[in-house]
Amino acid sequence: MTQYVYLFRDADGKNKAKFGGKGANLAEMTKLGMPVPPGFTITTEACTKYYEDGEKIAPEIIDEVFKTLEILEKETKKKFGDYDNPFLVSVRSGARASMPGMMDTILNLGLNDVSVEGLAKLTENPRFAYDCYRRFIQMYSDVVTGVEKANFERFIDEIKEQRGVKLDTELTADDLKVLIAEFKKFYKEKVGEDFPQDPKQQLVGAIQAVFRSWNNARAITYRRMNDIPSSWGTAVNVQSMVFGNMGDTSGTGVAFTRNPATGEKKLFGEFLMNAQGEDVVAGIRTPSSIDKLKEINPEVYDQFVGICNKLENYFHDMQDMEFTIERGKLYMLQTRNGKRTALAAINVAVDLVKEGLCTEQEALLKVEPKQLDDLLHPAFDKAVLKKSTPIAAGLPASPGAACGKICFTAEEAKERVKAGEKVVLVRIETSPEDIEGMQVAEGILTARGGLTSHAAVVARGMGACCVCGCGAVEIDEETGICTIAGKKYTKQDVISLDGSTGNVYEGSIPMVDPDTSGNFAKIMEWANKYKKLQVRANADNPHDAAVAYNFGAQGVGLCRTEHMFFEGDRIAAVREMIVSSTVEQRKAALAKILPMQKNDFIGIYKALKGYPVTIRFLDPPLHEFLPSKEEDIRALAADMGIAYETLLETVHSLHEMNPMLGHRGCRLAITFPEIAEMQTRAVIEAAISVNKDGGHVKAEIMIPLVGDVKELAYVKKVVVDTAEAVMAELGTRVEYKVGTMIEIPRAAITADKIAKEAEFFSFGTNDLTQMTFGFSRDDAGKFLGDYYKKKIFESDPFAKLDQEGVGELVKIAAAKGKATRPDIKLGICGEHGGDPSTIEFCHKVGLNYVSCSPYRVPIAILAAAQAAINNPQD
Amino acid sequence: MTQYVYLFRDADGKNKAKFGGKGANLAEMTKLGMPVPPGFTITTEACTKYYEDGEKIAPEIIDEVFKTLEILEKETKKKFGDYDNPFLVSVRSGARASMPGMMDTILNLGLNDVSVEGLAKLTENPRFAYDCYRRFIQMYSDVVTGVEKANFERFIDEIKEQRGVKLDTELTADDLKVLIAEFKKFYKEKVGEDFPQDPKQQLVGAIQAVFRSWNNARAITYRRMNDIPSSWGTAVNVQSMVFGNMGDTSGTGVAFTRNPATGEKKLFGEFLMNAQGEDVVAGIRTPSSIDKLKEINPEVYDQFVGICNKLENYFHDMQDMEFTIERGKLYMLQTRNGKRTALAAINVAVDLVKEGLCTEQEALLKVEPKQLDDLLHPAFDKAVLKKSTPIAAGLPASPGAACGKICFTAEEAKERVKAGEKVVLVRIETSPEDIEGMQVAEGILTARGGLTSHAAVVARGMGACCVCGCGAVEIDEETGICTIAGKKYTKQDVISLDGSTGNVYEGSIPMVDPDTSGNFAKIMEWANKYKKLQVRANADNPHDAAVAYNFGAQGVGLCRTEHMFFEGDRIAAVREMIVSSTVEQRKAALAKILPMQKNDFIGIYKALKGYPVTIRFLDPPLHEFLPSKEEDIRALAADMGIAYETLLETVHSLHEMNPMLGHRGCRLAITFPEIAEMQTRAVIEAAISVNKDGGHVKAEIMIPLVGDVKELAYVKKVVVDTAEAVMAELGTRVEYKVGTMIEIPRAAITADKIAKEAEFFSFGTNDLTQMTFGFSRDDAGKFLGDYYKKKIFESDPFAKLDQEGVGELVKIAAAKGKATRPDIKLGICGEHGGDPSTIEFCHKVGLNYVSCSPYRVPIAILAAAQAAINNPQD
Repeated sequence: MTQYVYLFRDADGKNKAKFGGKGANLAEMTKLGMPVPPGFTITTEACTKYYEDGEKIAPEIIDEVFKTLEILEKETKKKFGDYDNPFLVSVRSGARASMPGMMDTILNLGLNDVSVEGLAKLTENPRFAYDCYRRFIQMYSDVVTGVEKANFERFIDEIKEQRGVKLDTELTADDLKVLIAEFKKFYKEKVGEDFPQDPKQQLVGAIQAVFRSWNNARAITYRRMNDIPSSWGTAVNVQSMVFGNMGDTSGTGVAFTRNPATGEKKLFGEFLMNAQGEDVVAGIRTPSSIDKLKEINPEVYDQFVGICNKLENYFHDMQDMEFTIERGKLYMLQTRNGKRTALAAINVAVDLVKEGLCTEQEALLKVEPKQLDDLLHPAFDKAVLKKSTPIAAGLPASPGAACGKICFTAEEAKERVKAGEKVVLVRIETSPEDIEGMQVAEGILTARGGLTSHAAVVARGMGACCVCGCGAVEIDEETGICTIAGKKYTKQDVISLDGSTGNVYEGSIPMVDPDTSGNFAKIMEWANKYKKLQVRANADNPHDAAVAYNFGAQGVGLCRTEHMFFEGDRIAAVREMIVSSTVEQRKAALAKILPMQKNDFIGIYKALKGYPVTIRFLDPPLHEFLPSKEEDIRALAADMGIAYETLLETVHSLHEMNPMLGHRGCRLAITFPEIAEMQTRAVIEAAISVNKDGGHVKAEIMIPLVGDVKELAYVKKVVVDTAEAVMAELGTRVEYKVGTMIEIPRAAITADKIAKEAEFFSFGTNDLTQMTFGFSRDDAGKFLGDYYKKKIFESDPFAKLDQEGVGELVKIAAAKGKATRPDIKLGICGEHGGDPSTIEFCHKVGLNYVSCSPYRVPIAILAAAQAAINNPQD
Repeated sequence: MTQYVYLFRDADGKNKAKFGGKGANLAEMTKLGMPVPPGFTITTEACTKYYEDGEKIAPEIIDEVFKTLEILEKETKKKFGDYDNPFLVSVRSGARASMPGMMDTILNLGLNDVSVEGLAKLTENPRFAYDCYRRFIQMYSDVVTGVEKANFERFIDEIKEQRGVKLDTELTADDLKVLIAEFKKFYKEKVGEDFPQDPKQQLVGAIQAVFRSWNNARAITYRRMNDIPSSWGTAVNVQSMVFGNMGDTSGTGVAFTRNPATGEKKLFGEFLMNAQGEDVVAGIRTPSSIDKLKEINPEVYDQFVGICNKLENYFHDMQDMEFTIERGKLYMLQTRNGKRTALAAINVAVDLVKEGLCTEQEALLKVEPKQLDDLLHPAFDKAVLKKSTPIAAGLPASPGAACGKICFTAEEAKERVKAGEKVVLVRIETSPEDIEGMQVAEGILTARGGLTSHAAVVARGMGACCVCGCGAVEIDEETGICTIAGKKYTKQDVISLDGSTGNVYEGSIPMVDPDTSGNFAKIMEWANKYKKLQVRANADNPHDAAVAYNFGAQGVGLCRTEHMFFEGDRIAAVREMIVSSTVEQRKAALAKILPMQKNDFIGIYKALKGYPVTIRFLDPPLHEFLPSKEEDIRALAADMGIAYETLLETVHSLHEMNPMLGHRGCRLAITFPEIAEMQTRAVIEAAISVNKDGGHVKAEIMIPLVGDVKELAYVKKVVVDTAEAVMAELGTRVEYKVGTMIEIPRAAITADKIAKEAEFFSFGTNDLTQMTFGFSRDDAGKFLGDYYKKKIFESDPFAKLDQEGVGELVKIAAAKGKATRPDIKLGICGEHGGDPSTIEFCHKVGLNYVSCSPYRVPIAILAAAQAAINNPQD
């Protein structure tokens, strides 16, 4: 029989899949002899079973829970619902991957009308006991029955008014008793039954609520954003309560073994005396720095520092810990590898290696590739910054720089960003409902809350710039005005945030390119040492090619030639080509484009300094180069000196029902081989020119949208004939290859045949995803929302490669391609090429390279290194 | 070393792939001791090599030809280019499958200024010799150098005028000498060199011309129409000449052992005395019936009848033969299985079994499934026909009935048919250039030519109705008027042709359903006995379902429910549903559709009498139900009593960039599960209602456009929950299954997972073809023409399943589906379901059924039987 419930001391601390991150680490700390309040973990398997059983907890699991509970009761000599020595517990979720703020927690479970009296007597602190009880009722109502916590606040406000006091802490034990009676009455009204007095009933309700919360909307969104499969489920941790709110010798706090913003090796954290855990995180009272603890209770401080060191040495990583001091005694409630900024991540990783705490490979695994993004984007120009005066300052919660118009709600942020604006989200404090708005905003500014407040934690996780606890900010949502240090700002005003200093500026401050030297360069050096995949970039012009080269790209994996066609005077020649009615006219127009295209290639070749450049021939349907509105067509016709009707006819003849599935890609070159001839000539002439200047160009001509080998053979013949002619003309040879995109399912299925002609394959996973799923990116928006809501899709297949379907086609094609041509070069150039999970997939499938946008090159390099480290080959 | 050249007596008569049909049968006849002029065959492998070598004949093949030629010269004691005894040959193409009129032929090769004199002396007939020479020059110029035959006609016209004569035959030997001199001069002018006097050079030129003609435009078109791969190539047959134009004891003719129009067992054919082969087929002179030969030369006639019988017994099939009589001696030039009408095909097949000449299985293989089409389409209403007076009568060349407007050229026919007209092609005579026009016309009427004229042969092959040799027809293309029996008709006048009687009628005559009893029923009975695949029909209404049942369908494989949505008052309710803004509104609108949809299903279930009915749930994007033009939107808004802006907004919100890849199929049911609920209710309520009247409904609910098992699981749950609720309400159960279309590549790739939910798969090969190739049927027209021209595609992937790509996905899906669910039912319901080559593929892959349009059911049954016979299982 499967065991679903384990005491901390019996659980396997290495098995996070089973016990969740929190449960596993509680087990580890218990075994290390640290002061952990006793408790047990209900495994993630129980959660999975809960959903399999139609959202019911199996009776055998409930039995197991109660049996394990009895053991704890015996050991602690406390009893559930007891007057003499009541047993109280906390119930917390704990998934395999940390999901901060996403799951619900219940404290003080076990309190009822009897045990609350016992607690009062035992602690000789009735006020404390009744405060616990009223908090418990509120939290339980919220989490288990869905009657929101806020509903209860008006009773508190009323009684404070009656008593003429301002703070909750000013309410007496008797006030709280009155409040409890009111709470229970309200509960019965809302829920339709009495507030449960049986602690076992309370416990089952709480466990169920944790399981249920695994599938709340916020959790689903978070999982989608972080690539966490819904099948994992969450564990539940039930732990004896310890109290940070038992008076002035009690307290609670959170701390990091190093600074999570900078990586500096110095204990970093905050605590509040006479408070429970949620008070610190919620940002209602502003906590003290951890250093202060030394003054308040030096023994506990030293003990804590000792534990911190021990934990870091044990886990070989920076720890993020929660602790409680109950009447002067320290308890550890949680430890985990701390979330950190990108800057902190690379600094910690390099430091840990220096300190001998881990190897280079291990260090590389500690940096989240996606996070590097924060370091790769522009920061404020320091010269300008020096001259600028901040209008206010808050806490530097998450580094980076942000400029944008002021925006007060997450909803509004989403809408305005969709409409093309850049916004800074300004909130009193943030809550989990704000996550999507935080995601799209340039930066986040909050009026309240510390460095471990919701805004700070979430922004760091996202790599979003955040300044929090900026008391100078007052918000009036109704008038749409906020006052910063006395001056009024509307939604049309732009502010700038510096997440590294906490400074807030009026207007927009120019940004500069990021610094990628120092520890960043060290991480890249290690990553390059261990990765097997080559990393190339998608670059359509010399500037992007240079950026890519500087970021360490080993070539261009995709140069989209059509982007060059849109520029200035070129579009005129392109349009002339399109309206041509004879091959001769078309060739004349193409001749005008040739020198410009050749120059582009020269610039790109030079920027790459001998690394290969994959040039994709013209891909989009020709109508993309023409206007569609009557007035625009009229204007263009006048411009081109042709009749409106003639141009209109061309526009009509090019109209397509399904442009995605129309006359594009190699189909264009088959109809108009002269286009491929011109492009080949530009590729080869440019290469010859650069080689003359001492270059060593490796040109790779890529034919798009091939579905049948005969298509490729036809266009390849045009390319090779032209290339040979150009080289003969100019009396010299250059190195070039001809290959194809694999972006049509049929190409993948018949890759063995296509490889007879193709010297390389580049997987165009954007189109391949569209064709394989049978939906277009443009149109899928209409239903993908329902798909996420109904849990049909868990992640966006255009961001994270669908390994089961599209990936299977990639695998098939790679295998078939190699079977025909063992040395075939294989790469990927869709937008997936910069996604770490896709990169790992590419590594496993045995591709030679990935190609992504220039700014993602370092991310891809690190992800490629991690893939190699995580998948050692024999 | 590969042997490329074989004497007829050394060739393998069973190996048509190597020797072509003509060569193989010449070998067979030679071995049977029949009077075949000696010769040799150059294999199809030589043709393939010719193209592999860049359109060059390898020197070793030329050597082999000359060596083989020497053997013939020795045996016949004749010599190439000799004065004393000149050796003359014919050079003909001969592909594996017969391609009438598609390939070029050269007669009298070997003639030059010397040998023509020898021939004159030897035959004591100078006129004959010079006539041969001038014909040879004309033909050689045309075929080898591309200087068209017609260029020479003016010289003939001139000399006839000079001499004051009307017929070619009135020209004297001296006249012909003059003509030959003029021809040679003209040849030199056009070609730039003298007409070749070296017969060996002539021979190499002719062989090359045959190889080249394999890839002329007509041949490519014919191959595409008949699914012949271009890789087969053609053989070349070089044969000693015999002369049907050596005077009145010579002649030439073609004959069938049975009547190719009706199948009647009676020698059928035509001949011309003092003529060469081309004269009979070209329709210039009207030939005599083969019976007349008995009077002219009874010995030869008897010998010929004996040969006919021997050939039929040997080949177990009706033969189509060419013969020549040279000075009273019979020579056999060719035999092959005769092309025949569908009627003849089934009659011959049944007769051959009765006569003990073949087995039922062999007989089934002799009927071309596609041909049955002719018998399945309406013929003229006999009652009306009796009362109608024909305006003219020609030869009943190809049976069937046709009504349409008069049209004079193939080009015009193509254009007018494209524009939606029905036309009858009226020509003096037809030529290979007319094939595409003949294909699209309802019927063909010619003024000249016999039953074996080009028009007659091609029309029979196509199953097109044809009346030929109708002398009453005079055509004036310029004025656009034709006179039939003295009355003038314009292009706007409709005529009717009866291909079974040869009668031509004015106006349009009503048609009746075909008769499928008698030998047709016998063929179907045999086919049903041997086939393994079930054959179902695609039917969206009770009428089509009844037609399908009567044609022998074993169920409905695809009932498209959206077609029902477009009818009369339904569309109003559908539109009401689409503009609904709440689920309640939508449900109210759906409730109006429910009873109508239920009635449709009742009608279809009843028509099928217990056979399964696969009902596909709503598939098309919703915008298809709304108008798109402003005036129509305004009118509809007024009709619906809603604001124009409201409706316009709905229309806009439903607009899609790529409707093919948009919000359709199961995606609709996921967004609007209430649609699937209504449809399920209609399916189940209808089934319960029919079962109450003694029916045994087998309903199969098919969810379209599934790409991921979770999509299917979601919709299936809606279906099952609804079905169970309906059955519980009505207190009875019905048999139903839930399955899916496999029409998206991802569905095929993940079929093992999808089969966990799907009880059946139906391959929707229309969409699967579009997604797999990445082009839409609507848009592919723009480039597919170029694809055929450039030999990238050889057949239309929407008509004939692409087995290499799409078929591979079908195979993968079938295997994966069976791996998960061994008893999964597999079918195909795309338009490919009626295509014989696709049916054979489905048989091999192990599908359970194919589904096609009702009128194609017999074709599919026969094709399924042939597939089973051709692919016997262990």
